[in-house]
Amino acid sequence: MTPMTFARACDELENLDAAAMAAAASRQLELTKPPGSLGRLEAIAEQLCGIAAVCPAPVPGSPAVGVFAGDHGVVASGVTPWPQEVTAQMVSNFAAGGAGINAIARTVGASVHVIDVGVATSLDHVESVLARRVRAGTADLSVGPAMTVSEAQAALDVGASVAAGLVAEGVDLLITGEMGIGNTTATACLVAALSGADPRAVTGRGTGIDDDHLARKQQIVADAVARTEGSSPLDVLAQVGGLEIAALAGFIVGGAASRVPVIIDGVICNAALLVAEHLAPGVASFCIAGHRSVEPAASVVLAELGLDPVLDLELRLGEGTGGCLAVPVVRAAAATLAEMATFGEAGVG
Amino acid sequence: MTPMTFARACDELENLDAAAMAAAASRQLELTKPPGSLGRLEAIAEQLCGIAAVCPAPVPGSPAVGVFAGDHGVVASGVTPWPQEVTAQMVSNFAAGGAGINAIARTVGASVHVIDVGVATSLDHVESVLARRVRAGTADLSVGPAMTVSEAQAALDVGASVAAGLVAEGVDLLITGEMGIGNTTATACLVAALSGADPRAVTGRGTGIDDDHLARKQQIVADAVARTEGSSPLDVLAQVGGLEIAALAGFIVGGAASRVPVIIDGVICNAALLVAEHLAPGVASFCIAGHRSVEPAASVVLAELGLDPVLDLELRLGEGTGGCLAVPVVRAAAATLAEMATFGEAGVG
Repeated sequence: MTPMTFARACDELENLDAAAMAAAASRQLELTKPPGSLGRLEAIAEQLCGIAAVCPAPVPGSPAVGVFAGDHGVVASGVTPWPQEVTAQMVSNFAAGGAGINAIARTVGASVHVIDVGVATSLDHVESVLARRVRAGTADLSVGPAMTVSEAQAALDVGASVAAGLVAEGVDLLITGEMGIGNTTATACLVAALSGADPRAVTGRGTGIDDDHLARKQQIVADAVARTEGSSPLDVLAQVGGLEIAALAGFIVGGAASRVPVIIDGVICNAALLVAEHLAPGVASFCIAGHRSVEPAASVVLAELGLDPVLDLELRLGEGTGGCLAVPVVRAAAATLAEMATFGEAGVG
Repeated sequence: MTPMTFARACDELENLDAAAMAAAASRQLELTKPPGSLGRLEAIAEQLCGIAAVCPAPVPGSPAVGVFAGDHGVVASGVTPWPQEVTAQMVSNFAAGGAGINAIARTVGASVHVIDVGVATSLDHVESVLARRVRAGTADLSVGPAMTVSEAQAALDVGASVAAGLVAEGVDLLITGEMGIGNTTATACLVAALSGADPRAVTGRGTGIDDDHLARKQQIVADAVARTEGSSPLDVLAQVGGLEIAALAGFIVGGAASRVPVIIDGVICNAALLVAEHLAPGVASFCIAGHRSVEPAASVVLAELGLDPVLDLELRLGEGTGGCLAVPVVRAAAATLAEMATFGEAGVG
């Protein structure tokens, strides 16, 4: 089988199935409940039918979170108090099963797949991490392009092929996850550049920085975004993006092209979705926003794409944790549509 | 063994364990994540430790939803378009596994226990429904007391004994659920009478009524609440409550007395919790508000008890559906505290 590439995933991306969605909307009215009383579960169930092109859609039984890890050269400019080595240390922690994403994924029955798409530190000793390193971290986006266009394309391909591989193994629900010290800076740049939002306004505190760090980060974002003016989305991705973010964009499109729903985690994954939607218009209709991030860039993306996150638990960890926590809601949406009795069947009313 | 009574549950109710909660707060800071980045999961994890009196608290493995069903004589006054027979029909639907609560409970691994504490229609033909009928529906609260004080006490006992029985069978997480055509009217009365809130302001549209029905319902609530002035909480419960609501109050106290966390579903269960807190002060500290109800009475209770629901999925079905959907969040809270590696263990930072 030819490996899945990002370009091929873009070609294979279709629309949601309108007939299956209409059948779902109609079936909702026959189920033993007041009309509309399942609230957001009803819309999610209809979307799942549109994705699966069948009504009722199957209840997802095999979710998988792809945790893409990459480093960011911009950390040299002092945008975060965390040392770059923490990315690799956390990847080892994911591999050992000790991180937040591992604990949460276990509770919802999701498998965790860790992909090194651009960590700066050697990870050769860590088994169970998928080695797909495009380069050892991006260059410092405050002084030049984060990566070349062909590196960005290679990272997009990594994501698309990982998604296709998981689906081929039977995964029926994808969740985006990430790790990368410094990646809220790249995220702010991407969101400002692609949405036209004020670069300073979309720059947040990430996992926690003080006012001085924030001011420096905002200046870096504003300067980098200014350099991208007039660039294509792919060029923007190369100039100010991240390797894990590019891979996530590929993962999203790869999942959608396979007609599998993709749950989007917090702000980093929101930025990846914005990139994906620019490169593959319509892909967002296959996505479910899992968790509301407090980072300002998240709200910009969600508003632009018309998405309303399922959960708001004040998480700011990333890794895919908020996405995994939305899995049971997605399952419940599918299960109610598929399994509830109709008024006629139950003799109610 | 002596059967659990409501009075005994009140006697056995203790405080949260402060030492276990302090140990949890301290452990959160050592786990491989930025401080506070698990947001609301961290507070829930600490509460679970306080309930279990051990840190880390066990991850709930055996949740059970108690769906208490009762009818309301006030339906004769035209507060709802649904015929009273729907309560019994839906109880049969629960027993057959075809309702929303069944579909959702299955997705989170919760068992469903249906208790007839006061359905008006015969249910003798329905197996698997626990027959604990105190009376065949309440009297019409718009013309007199809904039930006698001893009937209210009997319903409180039913709930406490069901909770204790489930815990004795190994259940480690309780979820409240209910069914009763007309029960948002009793709920509005209870919440207004016990909180002092404006009776009209706490009266909502339930599962969906028009303006005429709403005006009638508001007048009925205002008149009934006026009759309760100066009454004790138990008298208020008897005058304007419901059998399933009384049983739920007993269930909540019974669970808390057994040191098991209790997830509270929507507005009806919020009212039951308010009753429970008046009869057994401190019981709310063992509870987790599962889902935000759109009914105005819900916000009054939540504000009064300082609870912030975990989920807001725009559900207005009841049955315990919103409570069940919060189970995975509670599990994730416990799992992160219990299973994540510390910075020291993982060599991070």
